[in-house]
Amino acid sequence: MEASVASEFDLISRYFKRPAPAGLLGVGDDCALFPVPAGMRVATSTDLLIEGRHFFPDVDPKALGHKSLAVNLSDLAAMGAQPIGCVLGLALPRASEPWLAAFAQGFHDLADAQGCPLIGGDTTRSPHDLVISVTVFGAAPAGRALHRDAAQVGDQIWVSGALGAADVAYRLLAGQLPADAMLLAATRRALEWPEPRVALGQALVDVAHAAIDVSDGLLQDLGHILSASHVGAQLQYDAMPIAPSLQGLPPTAVRQAVLGGGDVYELCFTAAPDQHVRVTEVAAHAGVSVTAIGHITQDPGLIVVGADGQPMRSLPRGFDHFPVS
Amino acid sequence: MEASVASEFDLISRYFKRPAPAGLLGVGDDCALFPVPAGMRVATSTDLLIEGRHFFPDVDPKALGHKSLAVNLSDLAAMGAQPIGCVLGLALPRASEPWLAAFAQGFHDLADAQGCPLIGGDTTRSPHDLVISVTVFGAAPAGRALHRDAAQVGDQIWVSGALGAADVAYRLLAGQLPADAMLLAATRRALEWPEPRVALGQALVDVAHAAIDVSDGLLQDLGHILSASHVGAQLQYDAMPIAPSLQGLPPTAVRQAVLGGGDVYELCFTAAPDQHVRVTEVAAHAGVSVTAIGHITQDPGLIVVGADGQPMRSLPRGFDHFPVS
Repeated sequence: MEASVASEFDLISRYFKRPAPAGLLGVGDDCALFPVPAGMRVATSTDLLIEGRHFFPDVDPKALGHKSLAVNLSDLAAMGAQPIGCVLGLALPRASEPWLAAFAQGFHDLADAQGCPLIGGDTTRSPHDLVISVTVFGAAPAGRALHRDAAQVGDQIWVSGALGAADVAYRLLAGQLPADAMLLAATRRALEWPEPRVALGQALVDVAHAAIDVSDGLLQDLGHILSASHVGAQLQYDAMPIAPSLQGLPPTAVRQAVLGGGDVYELCFTAAPDQHVRVTEVAAHAGVSVTAIGHITQDPGLIVVGADGQPMRSLPRGFDHFPVS
Repeated sequence: MEASVASEFDLISRYFKRPAPAGLLGVGDDCALFPVPAGMRVATSTDLLIEGRHFFPDVDPKALGHKSLAVNLSDLAAMGAQPIGCVLGLALPRASEPWLAAFAQGFHDLADAQGCPLIGGDTTRSPHDLVISVTVFGAAPAGRALHRDAAQVGDQIWVSGALGAADVAYRLLAGQLPADAMLLAATRRALEWPEPRVALGQALVDVAHAAIDVSDGLLQDLGHILSASHVGAQLQYDAMPIAPSLQGLPPTAVRQAVLGGGDVYELCFTAAPDQHVRVTEVAAHAGVSVTAIGHITQDPGLIVVGADGQPMRSLPRGFDHFPVS
């Protein structure tokens, strides 16, 4: 259904303009305004999601609204920042009101749950593809945010949640794995409704050293920590928290999904070994499972030790929009 | 030229990762971090620019880099905010290195000139159109930023710079006006290299009441001030600062360009009549011409008085991406 009587401003108002929380100026002026608590820095991250590239054209719009914000909140989580608010850019090839209503619902539901209200935005027509741009703002304790370059030799390496399901769901939907309705049903939620680990990230401030969120694949994202920290890592494949829904898949497909699969939005972080109990405690308090999967080494490079005690060969590459040719 | 050996991360590093100014964490972690001075609020604005919609595919990439940031800085200017930094989302259908180098140059030159460093971003491939998303952050004095809803009856209405040239350049390039190389040469800079009035906006804090930047057309943007402030306005067409390059065009084309033309990025603001001299002083200090073009009325509605002393009829509509059908 095309919007027949709604101007751009009407559409924005109807679905995206809600009363801003006290102290914030929201949608409807040249800028949104927000205060920052004393002693805190503003943490900000931006992501572009493009139809056909980051999501399928027929994705449930409510899930898409959720995920558009979730992937950005995940970046705040990886810094240990508390959400303040967000802005949304939306370029629409069509102005379907039911679609907009569902998208806004998914977006606002997560914004409400995480205390990250929509305070500004830009809506426009797009010639071809639906484009979603979200920028989030959070408050990070000055000098104590979780950085990528803070891993230390001897740190344990942890990952939250379970790995692999989102990648399998993506490959099923893209036709890269044989159709399997039960497997899709078991994995699809991981792909379309990722849960940003915001509470865990904040709880890890002063407990963890380095952190990153797994958006491009565990090995690739951990690799960013390693290169920024000038260290290496050894992982135990047997220790990986593999999503139970992957049981029965060929081992190579599981390995690809667990080590190389993107779109996970779990946290990968490092912490001193003497913080082991504390890590499990704060994670339990945040309601998230965490698993120690290896440790940081002085030798550069990233080794995954297989069940046979030997380093695994031909590890999967992560996701890269501009692959080396 | 396609990027043949550059991964996404290499491309980002080469053109967009520069040392962050002291106190800021820039590109290369999950989030950028920046401090906010005590007593200030963060002002933020986001804009999406789409190829074929907001710019021509063959536009000079250096100009496009400039304009992508300029349109957002213009929103900071309209709040009286001082730039802090910005983040950039870039979705590229092609990875042309000369194009990226020129785009980055135009972007960084303006960022440097306005003290608004690029501190974060996201780069991805786009299936069809080039998409640019910029979000800017600034510092606005708490409780003293310029708002749209602050116009008061009796205020003078002002506009900075000159009007009409950007619209004429757009219509020439779009083939909506007969080809005229000299006229295009005289107007094109206004369309492609808008100068955000950042210094003027900051200087107007405590001097002006309401402000907006003219992105969608003078009448439409002033209309936002009027509706937010629950007032009306009377403008004098003879008082309008019409770009000299429009001399010789048919009066109807000039009127359309001046009153309805978008992409101007001048400030429209209101101030009490007793601030007249002060407005001209702070504008002169900011190096920008300003012109009083009318006044705020208690009666709602927007009247433009023509040379004959009568209200002009059939005023141009502003730009709306979702026109009423």
